[in-house]
Amino acid sequence: MSESTKYFLPEDRMPKAWYNLAADLPTPLPPALHPGTGQPIGPADLAPIFPNAVIEQEVSTERWIEIPEPVREVYRLWRPSPLIRARRLEQALGTPAKIFFKYEGVSPAGSHKPNTAVPQAFYNKQEGVKRLSTETGAGQWGSSLAFAGSLFGLEVEVYMVKVSYNQKPYRRALMETYGATCIASPSTLTQAGRDILARHPDSNGSLGIAISEAVEVAASRDDTKYALGSVLNHVCLHQTIIGEEAMMQMEMAGESPDVVIACTGGGSNFAGLAFPYVRENLKGAKVRIVGVEPASCPTLTKGLYAYDFGDTGKLTPMVKMHTLGATFMPPGSHSGGLRYHGMAPMVSHVMELGLMEARSYHQTECFAAAVQFARAEGIVPAPESSHAVKAAIAEALRCKEEGKAETILFNLSGHGHFDMQAYTDYFSGKLIDPQFDQQALAAALEELPKAG
Amino acid sequence: MSESTKYFLPEDRMPKAWYNLAADLPTPLPPALHPGTGQPIGPADLAPIFPNAVIEQEVSTERWIEIPEPVREVYRLWRPSPLIRARRLEQALGTPAKIFFKYEGVSPAGSHKPNTAVPQAFYNKQEGVKRLSTETGAGQWGSSLAFAGSLFGLEVEVYMVKVSYNQKPYRRALMETYGATCIASPSTLTQAGRDILARHPDSNGSLGIAISEAVEVAASRDDTKYALGSVLNHVCLHQTIIGEEAMMQMEMAGESPDVVIACTGGGSNFAGLAFPYVRENLKGAKVRIVGVEPASCPTLTKGLYAYDFGDTGKLTPMVKMHTLGATFMPPGSHSGGLRYHGMAPMVSHVMELGLMEARSYHQTECFAAAVQFARAEGIVPAPESSHAVKAAIAEALRCKEEGKAETILFNLSGHGHFDMQAYTDYFSGKLIDPQFDQQALAAALEELPKAG
Repeated sequence: MSESTKYFLPEDRMPKAWYNLAADLPTPLPPALHPGTGQPIGPADLAPIFPNAVIEQEVSTERWIEIPEPVREVYRLWRPSPLIRARRLEQALGTPAKIFFKYEGVSPAGSHKPNTAVPQAFYNKQEGVKRLSTETGAGQWGSSLAFAGSLFGLEVEVYMVKVSYNQKPYRRALMETYGATCIASPSTLTQAGRDILARHPDSNGSLGIAISEAVEVAASRDDTKYALGSVLNHVCLHQTIIGEEAMMQMEMAGESPDVVIACTGGGSNFAGLAFPYVRENLKGAKVRIVGVEPASCPTLTKGLYAYDFGDTGKLTPMVKMHTLGATFMPPGSHSGGLRYHGMAPMVSHVMELGLMEARSYHQTECFAAAVQFARAEGIVPAPESSHAVKAAIAEALRCKEEGKAETILFNLSGHGHFDMQAYTDYFSGKLIDPQFDQQALAAALEELPKAG
Repeated sequence: MSESTKYFLPEDRMPKAWYNLAADLPTPLPPALHPGTGQPIGPADLAPIFPNAVIEQEVSTERWIEIPEPVREVYRLWRPSPLIRARRLEQALGTPAKIFFKYEGVSPAGSHKPNTAVPQAFYNKQEGVKRLSTETGAGQWGSSLAFAGSLFGLEVEVYMVKVSYNQKPYRRALMETYGATCIASPSTLTQAGRDILARHPDSNGSLGIAISEAVEVAASRDDTKYALGSVLNHVCLHQTIIGEEAMMQMEMAGESPDVVIACTGGGSNFAGLAFPYVRENLKGAKVRIVGVEPASCPTLTKGLYAYDFGDTGKLTPMVKMHTLGATFMPPGSHSGGLRYHGMAPMVSHVMELGLMEARSYHQTECFAAAVQFARAEGIVPAPESSHAVKAAIAEALRCKEEGKAETILFNLSGHGHFDMQAYTDYFSGKLIDPQFDQQALAAALEELPKAG
């Protein structure tokens, strides 16, 4: 085999700007609404918790937004990330398809999350912020922000869902290695935490609670802002460096994808790879774009496109998105990063415009795909990323059936080094496929806000 | 900052041959001796446990040994590995020195070990072997051989020191993900294991015992061979791809190292980076070459250069090496990969010839260095590799004191994602520096074989 396996862009070809899909959307994104008044929110509403540069990006319709040089300098620690041809997987499947993946697990924190953690830390530092607060579930986001904070000299305070705090001590150790403080949520440090503990002293916590704690801390301290790891427009924006690089690398490989695949939780790793291809489709290209979600939390495939809150406590602005209802509690699974009731408004809008497809898989079939991938390519995927692996394999097998030599590109958003308990459970047969609860969905959708 | 941070060789410049230092040594390596007769061993003595191709490499004095194309094809999954300039660490230290590191943690198993696991699996497969047996301590080597076995369709049976088997379930999960079988040692599957259990039913195991079990399995089954992850000549040989790549990448960077640094346990990651530079020194270059070992297991700095056994059970051939005595039990530490009583005979020979320096550090100062490195460069080093990080920082601070802009190159042999318990212990103040026991050393040296 003489052809290349990996495609590395030289550092001087690393993109100098993020791509903003808002500039090219045929219809604009519905505005976010104030939780109290139901009226569109303005920058002033967000100022207590986000720096100005981030707020500007959140509402910008500029097509290209320059990546500041200090951010590019940090990106160079691991970017451009490799594009890899999964030749051994192709052989194992016996498919005529060509399978490529963009590998974001090479980042220090092991996933795509630092792509946005680094600029968020930079903008906050530039505006004189001393401390960032955030929430984390499984810990991918918390460790990424901890890493970014350490590089820009910002304190980072991470409210980690208590059940994960206790079950995943090594993610916590990673955050501490980067110098961050990690607090089990609900905590006694915030009013939100104390309220919950008064009612539920044994609470295991939830992302919704942890968000409330982190936001409260940011809103109540002058030197502290809040950082979010997915869902919002500026987060999707920062991730587009994935797709911009991939496009150049596919060109280096002399290929062009027929299908582009990424998993969807809050939507940012999907947006990162897919939005540049959505742009090309709007100009006439015909790339199939596929979002993959867990069958236990099927936001795009079973949710409603409606205004809803971002958190369980209904304190955030309302955004129009695919949602299972802010009070819907997704069943436990090993893909903590995909257990979110909503979807990035920008991704939801793309879905509504018919510019993408969505599908869902159960976690055991995703782990089976991840193990097959690991045995062929060596890399152990994060449970979240295994959803994209599963879909890529399904597409490759379809190509085999149909005798088509299509080119498949997927985003391997992270490695699974900190998720080996999930693999242990899978091998020991302990892993079950949580069934989706239609009645709980109906009840949660009943509670959607009437606004919008 | 406009200069590059990372240097990637294109795949077509990946070395086509391993470098064999035996060809250039001013005096030849003393032969290995038969444990029974005390006479030099021949290929026939090794045939029951190693394939012919490996035995040939073990005794070869050819300067260049071709890397088979199927091995290169697998190497391409992660090789050439990056050379990275640690610009942020330089800034943090305020040193005029330039610090470069070769990063081997990009391999699927997270360390340099697959560089030899892959060719060993390949040669065994080629000679019709069905199954490989091996031992592992912390699990780096076991997971690397498991990975290599999965790619060539070989069964892999790993005898894992029982205390690690219980303490490090995630390394075990990684081996199982690659399809290997992992057995707690001592086990009831071998005579060696049963003997130990009869005398010590609660035995926690040791590398020496696990080696005996793995060798017994290989020697007693026709379809099974044994694989070793360090110490032997062929292992050092396979690792030289690290130094050959690094040399080309330093040239890309327009630099040439004044000091080359690697940690030393069995000696293979050190040999991998250093031997190509030893060659250049033998031709007149003047690069300082530094091996770094734990103060609790100071083979090169406090051991004797003498014939000794490779295992505690004294079943292996005797080799001339720096040794603390085969019965010396290194105190527990988080650098499992450096807890070996001996040293690669080839590295020991290089030391005796005055072609390298050696020094030792305590583990807490190594963890402090590793944390400083992680906060500057993002990568969390493996505890073993932190010894090289510590030495590189010490050299950079010396340069600062002396006002010298030297160029430092070290081998970051692996990441610490599976070693976060060690970091947790470090942060909680639980980590102690085991003192080196001079009396135990004296007692163990008393027991050295008289042969040779």
